[in-house]
Amino acid sequence: MTGEDLRRILVIGIGAGDPEHVTLAAVRAMRDCEVFLLLDKGTRTSELTRLRRNLVAEHAGPGHRVVEAEDPRRDRSPADTAGYRSQVVDWRHHRAALYERLIQDELAPSRTGAFLVWGDPALYDSTIDALDEVAARGQVSFTYNVIPGVSSISVLAARHRTTLTRLGRPLRIAPGRHVAGSGLVAGEDVAVMLDVGAALTAHRAEGWWMYWGAYVGTPEELLVSGPLNEVADQVVELRAAARKRHGWIMDACLLRTDGPDQQAEATPPSGSGQNSAGLLPPL
Amino acid sequence: MTGEDLRRILVIGIGAGDPEHVTLAAVRAMRDCEVFLLLDKGTRTSELTRLRRNLVAEHAGPGHRVVEAEDPRRDRSPADTAGYRSQVVDWRHHRAALYERLIQDELAPSRTGAFLVWGDPALYDSTIDALDEVAARGQVSFTYNVIPGVSSISVLAARHRTTLTRLGRPLRIAPGRHVAGSGLVAGEDVAVMLDVGAALTAHRAEGWWMYWGAYVGTPEELLVSGPLNEVADQVVELRAAARKRHGWIMDACLLRTDGPDQQAEATPPSGSGQNSAGLLPPL
Repeated sequence: MTGEDLRRILVIGIGAGDPEHVTLAAVRAMRDCEVFLLLDKGTRTSELTRLRRNLVAEHAGPGHRVVEAEDPRRDRSPADTAGYRSQVVDWRHHRAALYERLIQDELAPSRTGAFLVWGDPALYDSTIDALDEVAARGQVSFTYNVIPGVSSISVLAARHRTTLTRLGRPLRIAPGRHVAGSGLVAGEDVAVMLDVGAALTAHRAEGWWMYWGAYVGTPEELLVSGPLNEVADQVVELRAAARKRHGWIMDACLLRTDGPDQQAEATPPSGSGQNSAGLLPPL
Repeated sequence: MTGEDLRRILVIGIGAGDPEHVTLAAVRAMRDCEVFLLLDKGTRTSELTRLRRNLVAEHAGPGHRVVEAEDPRRDRSPADTAGYRSQVVDWRHHRAALYERLIQDELAPSRTGAFLVWGDPALYDSTIDALDEVAARGQVSFTYNVIPGVSSISVLAARHRTTLTRLGRPLRIAPGRHVAGSGLVAGEDVAVMLDVGAALTAHRAEGWWMYWGAYVGTPEELLVSGPLNEVADQVVELRAAARKRHGWIMDACLLRTDGPDQQAEATPPSGSGQNSAGLLPPL
């Protein structure tokens, strides 16, 4: 197979919910793409698929084709970390097999296909790993490029009008179960993606600040900020209610730990319009 | 002053160099903006200002005005961390004074002004802090919103066709001087922004992998990946040469430390088109 015959795949970051958070590069990629491979995780996140369909309808060129498939399910609550890891590895192999079949059956050689990835493909998304696994299997030849996207934690910070990083200080990005297991470290702020509830129930340290958001960038957006020990219960309740209402939840939070800057930042900055321990009004 | 008379400020993330990495929200914001407040750090980064000017020329509406000012300089190499912190705090106060003057003098009440921020305003950018400081001074009234952007580390990962995070594992984002001081932790990958050279000269741990990039997303882009102990010298030389050629450098790297996934990832995935320890060819 010559280079010209290779299938071309675009992994397109589409932002975290606001259709205006797609980049011009993503718009151009969607316009040039012939086959959209949309993976749905079942009814749980069909709302997310609907948002992707809307983006395709708005930006794709004439003659494009949409192929929808269901992502292999996985149990989200294994007993331990080792169980979690092996289970995710299994799930990834299933996923690679699915991707291979989709690419082989739905994308003719020399054609361009796209996967639309929530947020940024570099942050807790398995599309790139799955494509590398498909390539390693050697059954189907393709090239791929990645178009970076706006991540959900960038949107979270923007909507709270704060920053993820502070002066010369590190930020840890971690899943909730990791934060629950390892704890918070003074002086190191943490952005929690995935399993946010696990982080919330594990830590109620005083003096630390939380910025939380769900469905950020969408009309369903929920935002809460305040001292962690004061607002954690409120957020746990909001999460449960939102999950019941939507059938799924996609949220993230920034835990700002104590440290040299803490004194100056313990209260929200004036002029930001933010209520302590309250919902941020829509902007 | 009533709400209607308030000045409206937009902090717009414009991505890390590729003009197509701006979002539709950023394009809309630039179209609606009346006054662009562009801060230049002097000749050192005038290329960056030129890129911002080009974005304004392409997206701004008729009748807009561009105001350029020079950011207060600061010494980038103080002797110690305490010196670094106090100096940056000083610099921020100067910067807030400058912002206050710009907003008061250049933006009439009820008008919309914008700051165009490189990458994402939430990651190692001081615009939001400066605006909060201006608000706290109470001399000029305004509201502001933040439009998130694609960060340079997202572009770095995309261009290397890899991810910043791995299965269930944390990522630390940190300045080079922090990484140099605290070291690398097994099992915790690190994305280095700012002072990348400091991290490179401090660590040559075997078994760890580096993805490095400078001017990512621009025609001047440089990308190197490979085992840290093998490619660090090459990157140090490339950085020095690039800094000499351009007069400035903007780079970042991902240091992938050892850990359970290491074995499978010690060699670049097949199909990625990546050369071990070599420059990645343009896509």
